[in-house]
Amino acid sequence: MTTPDLDPKLVEDSYPLQQHLGFQMTAWQPDYARIEVPLTKVLMNRQGLPHGGVHATLLDSAMGFAGCYTGDPDRRQMALTLSLTVNYLAQAEGSHLIAEGWRVGGGRKTYFAEGKVSDALGTVIATATGVFRYRSME
Amino acid sequence: MTTPDLDPKLVEDSYPLQQHLGFQMTAWQPDYARIEVPLTKVLMNRQGLPHGGVHATLLDSAMGFAGCYTGDPDRRQMALTLSLTVNYLAQAEGSHLIAEGWRVGGGRKTYFAEGKVSDALGTVIATATGVFRYRSME
Amino acid sequence: MTTPDLDPKLVEDSYPLQQHLGFQMTAWQPDYARIEVPLTKVLMNRQGLPHGGVHATLLDSAMGFAGCYTGDPDRRQMALTLSLTVNYLAQAEGSHLIAEGWRVGGGRKTYFAEGKVSDALGTVIATATGVFRYRSME
Amino acid sequence: MTTPDLDPKLVEDSYPLQQHLGFQMTAWQPDYARIEVPLTKVLMNRQGLPHGGVHATLLDSAMGFAGCYTGDPDRRQMALTLSLTVNYLAQAEGSHLIAEGWRVGGGRKTYFAEGKVSDALGTVIATATGVFRYRSME
Repeated sequence: MTTPDLDPKLVEDSYPLQQHLGFQMTAWQPDYARIEVPLTKVLMNRQGLPHGGVHATLLDSAMGFAGCYTGDPDRRQMALTLSLTVNYLAQAEGSHLIAEGWRVGGGRKTYFAEGKVSDALGTVIATATGVFRYRSME
Repeated sequence: MTTPDLDPKLVEDSYPLQQHLGFQMTAWQPDYARIEVPLTKVLMNRQGLPHGGVHATLLDSAMGFAGCYTGDPDRRQMALTLSLTVNYLAQAEGSHLIAEGWRVGGGRKTYFAEGKVSDALGTVIATATGVFRYRSME
Repeated sequence: MTTPDLDPKLVEDSYPLQQHLGFQMTAWQPDYARIEVPLTKVLMNRQGLPHGGVHATLLDSAMGFAGCYTGDPDRRQMALTLSLTVNYLAQAEGSHLIAEGWRVGGGRKTYFAEGKVSDALGTVIATATGVFRYRSME
Repeated sequence: MTTPDLDPKLVEDSYPLQQHLGFQMTAWQPDYARIEVPLTKVLMNRQGLPHGGVHATLLDSAMGFAGCYTGDPDRRQMALTLSLTVNYLAQAEGSHLIAEGWRVGGGRKTYFAEGKVSDALGTVIATATGVFRYRSME
């Protein structure tokens, strides 16, 4: 699942929700992260469509990783989400979702990020903005 | 799992993501819904805390149900989320999360909702607002 | 313009935009502030309705004051808005708007607030949430 | 104040709040609008900085125009803001603010937009997303 955008040494074990929903990081660069998830049946809502909470989870995750890149697996930066806004533009087609996040501003204590979810056809399905607070480095 | 706030005849089978994450509706009244989820390990993030996407999923669901109450299991109203904003106020303690949603405005085509997530101690963990669009009745 | 909710000694000179738009603080208590504005013609948009930016300005102001109450005119707390979300529920009727803000969470560095705008008939016209960062005390 | 990006025949008389705050449209193309405002003293807040409500007003305006371009001064499309989220990334320097809005999705009834405010040095000061509802054509 590694790509030229993802240094293999930065790949972490999936954390519990990540494993449970089945998403994978496919890129992690300074101020940028990308994660992807197959649209399996467990992600569906009352209408048989991907639940809006899935997009929110992917966007929160991608924007969280985007602001926490260190390039050093022994220096893991963490952040807490303060605020997350998701807009739902279109319905997904195809087999999987791709979420990307960008750190777009902020400083040492808080940061701002933007994100988008695209489907397998390249259509933008959802966009997001968020404000995050850094935790003290472990 | 039924309560005085939830007419047993309105209880629907859990949809896939609902079942996968383990949440249950515990109240559904006109313009109001409440759902609850045990804080099982699968909901945790990279830091061992409940993932912010869980709060977003619960809030989107509770606000979605709040606007779609009909009181008639044969008339199921559906809605699509247009926009969702979640603020993360505190970290959860205790065994489960309780999400409540209220329809607070709008008309026949779109509606506005507010929501909050509380933990088992009654602390407000997250709040949300959302804008939703009704789908044509089935 | 003072009321029982507003200690006269806390009334500050209107700042420039406040004076330019004509709004007045009418209540300031711990974690709460209320401001009011007559719906004069200068606040109108391209459609002859109060501009959505007016609601946003009032809500940002009321939530900002709500988190910055000190009760001491010589200790003025300031804050910067990190994120503001406004939902527009209804159109205003009557002569003026009333905006209220409540601090609902946070700590020493950042805080969360909620707000609403009502019209002269008591109808809720707009709601808001915001995240704010405290500045160092002067 | 017209530019190559703005067809002179589309320039409308300033509406009241626009005139009162002093902003001008400087570009209007399909799905895009740009407005600019000199940072005069009347726009300042309690701290002597441009009030966050000014950014919100400019962003709401630019995103509103972006979705309402018709290219025909006799066919004026109007929209109502349903939801607006503004993130405040940095403090402005220089003499004026430039707000841009882009329509990024939606259909005949509602649309989604993104916006940003830059200062005279090109620094991004604020970003926004919004959901809008079209009014029936006049």
